[in-house]
Amino acid sequence: MKQSVIIVAGGKGLRMGSDLPKQFLPVGGKPVLMHTLEAFRKYDAMLQIILVLPREQQDFWKQLCEEHHFSVEHLIADGGETRFHSVKNGLALVEAPGLVGVHDGVRPFVTLEVIRRCYKLAEQHKAVIPVVDVVETLRHLTDAGSETVSRTEYKLVQTPQVFEVELLKQAYGQEFTPFFTDDASVVEAMGVPVYLAEGNRENIKITTPFDLKIGSALL
Amino acid sequence: MKQSVIIVAGGKGLRMGSDLPKQFLPVGGKPVLMHTLEAFRKYDAMLQIILVLPREQQDFWKQLCEEHHFSVEHLIADGGETRFHSVKNGLALVEAPGLVGVHDGVRPFVTLEVIRRCYKLAEQHKAVIPVVDVVETLRHLTDAGSETVSRTEYKLVQTPQVFEVELLKQAYGQEFTPFFTDDASVVEAMGVPVYLAEGNRENIKITTPFDLKIGSALL
Repeated sequence: MKQSVIIVAGGKGLRMGSDLPKQFLPVGGKPVLMHTLEAFRKYDAMLQIILVLPREQQDFWKQLCEEHHFSVEHLIADGGETRFHSVKNGLALVEAPGLVGVHDGVRPFVTLEVIRRCYKLAEQHKAVIPVVDVVETLRHLTDAGSETVSRTEYKLVQTPQVFEVELLKQAYGQEFTPFFTDDASVVEAMGVPVYLAEGNRENIKITTPFDLKIGSALL
Repeated sequence: MKQSVIIVAGGKGLRMGSDLPKQFLPVGGKPVLMHTLEAFRKYDAMLQIILVLPREQQDFWKQLCEEHHFSVEHLIADGGETRFHSVKNGLALVEAPGLVGVHDGVRPFVTLEVIRRCYKLAEQHKAVIPVVDVVETLRHLTDAGSETVSRTEYKLVQTPQVFEVELLKQAYGQEFTPFFTDDASVVEAMGVPVYLAEGNRENIKITTPFDLKIGSALL
């Protein structure tokens, strides 16, 4: 079955005075985003990789690729107003039938095992997301204050979230609402259940200087 | 007002064939636990520090202190069957009136600012716990499967959890139940609300090799 991945790198920036978007920050001598693309290329040499980048960052990215002699083949799609619109733009380049994953550009530490597991399970379950345990005590904020909830009843969601192409295209045909926090929620809005697969805890999102420190340590 | 902290280091081990308990693992050339004690000594030179350790680890700890010329003054209490019993043993060495914090021995990266904030707020609010945002998408497991919940309605709980001594002694006078997952839940079982203070995200619990890598990177 044909397989693709849409890697979403929506981090804004590159305007005068703003910081370098997180996806370009160097970890182990290379932009975060390159590690992420390499992880998926390692999974499958034939995988169609689509990188979604804000238009104003695309020249900069190409320049980085040249500088780093980066050879992982990929297509580029334009970033949109929100993550929803970015994924939709990437999805326009994907053909049915097949499986398509959606992955955060700033999650370079996804393991090969987790990528394999999610695509494999999606053949059967059509919509699969990787999750990990909540390791801290969890509190729920209520109108009256807050209360401890049982952390074993909750999971933290990561990416890649993998779907049947037709299913995801249909889901992204819906009108955008702010309740769409990830691809699973877009698919669920159609009443389709998602299947939970085991993720890997190292698969963190690099979004703060703290994460970047962790990232460097992990490499 | 007199202030104390109970540092709970309940990690089992040190029997034949088992691994070194996490609290003794070296981070930056020194056992995790020493960093934790130093953080509280830095907060207040007069703070009463009570370390709760399983009895079979106490000789090993004293030996480590000698080897590292570790000079942070502290009392030692015996670890109990569960965290609840360990805290209770530590609490027996604390006198009312005053404020007492309870802190995980394997959280060496609590900042001075967070310690100060929790003790300061406890003067007024009597029961204060540090919390941080949930940064990933959160799912709730249900009988039917699972559903996305709004992560902004949840917080992850850390330590030190700081209380009026009399309040905490009264709370720990209750009969143990498995619903007591942290000190806040013990106090809340009496109907007393806890106040949420801002924690620091680096204040992670060192419980896996992954955490240890992060820990080394943070130092």
